[in-house]
Amino acid sequence: MAHPVAPVSPPLKDDLDIVIPTIRNLDFLAMWRPFFEPYHLIIVQDGDPTKTIRVPEGFDYELYNRNDVNRVLGPRVSCISFKDSACRCFGFLVSKKKYIFTIDDDCFVAKDPSGKEINALAQHIQNLLTPSTPLFFNTLYDPYRDGADFVRGYPFSLREGVPTAISHGLWLNIPDYDAPTQLVKPRERNSSTGRYVDAVMTIPKGSLFPMCGMNLAFDRELIGPAMYFGLMGDGQPIGRYDDMWAGWCAKVICDHLSLGVKTGLPYIWHSKASNPFVNLKKEYKGIYWQEEIIPFFQSVLLPKECTTVQKCYIELSRQVKEKLGPLDPYFQKLGDAMVTWIEAWDQLNSPAQQAAANKKNESTPSTKSSILFGVTY
Amino acid sequence: MAHPVAPVSPPLKDDLDIVIPTIRNLDFLAMWRPFFEPYHLIIVQDGDPTKTIRVPEGFDYELYNRNDVNRVLGPRVSCISFKDSACRCFGFLVSKKKYIFTIDDDCFVAKDPSGKEINALAQHIQNLLTPSTPLFFNTLYDPYRDGADFVRGYPFSLREGVPTAISHGLWLNIPDYDAPTQLVKPRERNSSTGRYVDAVMTIPKGSLFPMCGMNLAFDRELIGPAMYFGLMGDGQPIGRYDDMWAGWCAKVICDHLSLGVKTGLPYIWHSKASNPFVNLKKEYKGIYWQEEIIPFFQSVLLPKECTTVQKCYIELSRQVKEKLGPLDPYFQKLGDAMVTWIEAWDQLNSPAQQAAANKKNESTPSTKSSILFGVTY
Repeated sequence: MAHPVAPVSPPLKDDLDIVIPTIRNLDFLAMWRPFFEPYHLIIVQDGDPTKTIRVPEGFDYELYNRNDVNRVLGPRVSCISFKDSACRCFGFLVSKKKYIFTIDDDCFVAKDPSGKEINALAQHIQNLLTPSTPLFFNTLYDPYRDGADFVRGYPFSLREGVPTAISHGLWLNIPDYDAPTQLVKPRERNSSTGRYVDAVMTIPKGSLFPMCGMNLAFDRELIGPAMYFGLMGDGQPIGRYDDMWAGWCAKVICDHLSLGVKTGLPYIWHSKASNPFVNLKKEYKGIYWQEEIIPFFQSVLLPKECTTVQKCYIELSRQVKEKLGPLDPYFQKLGDAMVTWIEAWDQLNSPAQQAAANKKNESTPSTKSSILFGVTY
Repeated sequence: MAHPVAPVSPPLKDDLDIVIPTIRNLDFLAMWRPFFEPYHLIIVQDGDPTKTIRVPEGFDYELYNRNDVNRVLGPRVSCISFKDSACRCFGFLVSKKKYIFTIDDDCFVAKDPSGKEINALAQHIQNLLTPSTPLFFNTLYDPYRDGADFVRGYPFSLREGVPTAISHGLWLNIPDYDAPTQLVKPRERNSSTGRYVDAVMTIPKGSLFPMCGMNLAFDRELIGPAMYFGLMGDGQPIGRYDDMWAGWCAKVICDHLSLGVKTGLPYIWHSKASNPFVNLKKEYKGIYWQEEIIPFFQSVLLPKECTTVQKCYIELSRQVKEKLGPLDPYFQKLGDAMVTWIEAWDQLNSPAQQAAANKKNESTPSTKSSILFGVTY
């Protein structure tokens, strides 16, 4: 079974940030302590910035509330959603690490069918550090897993795979359903003795998927600028499509740049279902719009001049405004926000910024709280 | 867990044939008795036609040796391989049923992780009778399974899915590896406590897969004419690519006609590995050729005039000769054989033949041996 135990030296300890959007005290971290404590956390506090978020002792973290986000981004703050978990992408922006793992604060450690606690982060790291196989389907799932391989008939020239950009994890207990399905199936649960699927697989090239932000890891250097969670929540006509938007954009860019997206293990335990009535209000335009958005993304063509994620994303923003703009003025605004996001990304991730960050990391490797952009906790 | 117990009335009892290619006594059927006995078997005896194949008592079967195949097909017999499991497709040709399940005679009943025997046929039937979802990826696997559904962000307009044409099952114990992988990993095994993946999934549109004929079911009415296993074995430069060829052809036709292909459950227990040295001799041209065959199939375009499987297949045979012919004269011969196969299909599956078969089925519902095309056992 692919649930590596926490090794003596935590993998990627200095190369991975854990990003958590929240509006409440982070007591959920207590259960994750054995797995998360060696890593740096970036907490994005949503909602009322005067509220104090309690973080259990011993964690190494930086925390940004809305005032901080404003201060860091200035006028470009317009691209960061408020009162919606879409604000998590601010954490992706300010991270200086190669890898990101992001998790919701109602997600707990799950157990595999044998009763063993699952180190979700270790599985994500394993997923990200092994290649993906988007160009041909392997019927025995992840061929890079111990004890597995490519099956007869798999072309040898494709067995090196492509670099993995995204690792999408799943959920036990409460499945990630939309409001209508929540309403129709209020009691549906996924347990480790029921629907635990012991597999990681690559989502084939050309196939879109519904990316959930609850339990998600990615290679920031490979795909970071495409992991924008859009305009949701406060002042926007839509919610709960932040991760979907990022997933659609990121997948077409991964396909274009020959990068891989994996889904499957690790599972986390999703503790509580959100209110389906509230969700329905947030989702109903998305449910309607996605019937046009999906065909749009299925037919997006990126020109070969788009050789970087940033160039792909800017081109995508142009096509969003052109092709989805007629659907609703929201998509004009979203297209503009996509451009602002890339500007903000480049502002905070310039080579100079990166060098400074690397220097700082070297000089203060063991700080338990960080000072970045003048924000202290 | 999705392992339906054998119901009181076996599902599709009068609508499904089990096709078994073999060169030996079918003692393996003893273990399958509780699951297969209600169904009709079509046994295709490969190799020496004078040899008597013993079938355990109580099974309802018809058996064809090479002399029978010659007699039934006349000059068109040239399209049916000899001394290769590719001969199994003759069974698809002479069946008059809507569904086919085909299995190798070294495949036994597997057990799930709880120790329960898996009714592979029942799982295939369940797979075939529920829709597929090739147009958008569902991260929680088969959305039609009890206790599962479409996740948030899955377009509602795509939730009806498409009809399922093929159900591809997997293998415990000996994995289906090519000769080089067999040689490198002679001891690799897949056990129900190791790599048992409790999932069925749709292979997305546009993605090719390595289809194995060992444990395979399909809807003969939807995709039958594309399930041709090519020219392999005796007198041919290649072997062990019969099922691969059928899989590539069938998948591009399924994609064109909006039909679904599923893979995953059910597992069977694959008892013995074939000889890797013999396999290498059979495979080596295929291993080389497939590097050009795969790009060919990945770029095949079928015109919209191809509205039936037969029309698609004839068009595909034309493209095979045109595009793969230059690779080796074998592909000219294979392209011709594809046309002969369709002629044989139409000969044995004309509306008149079909009506006669239906009538016969009605009048002799309980025969334990069959007379078809003048062949008696």
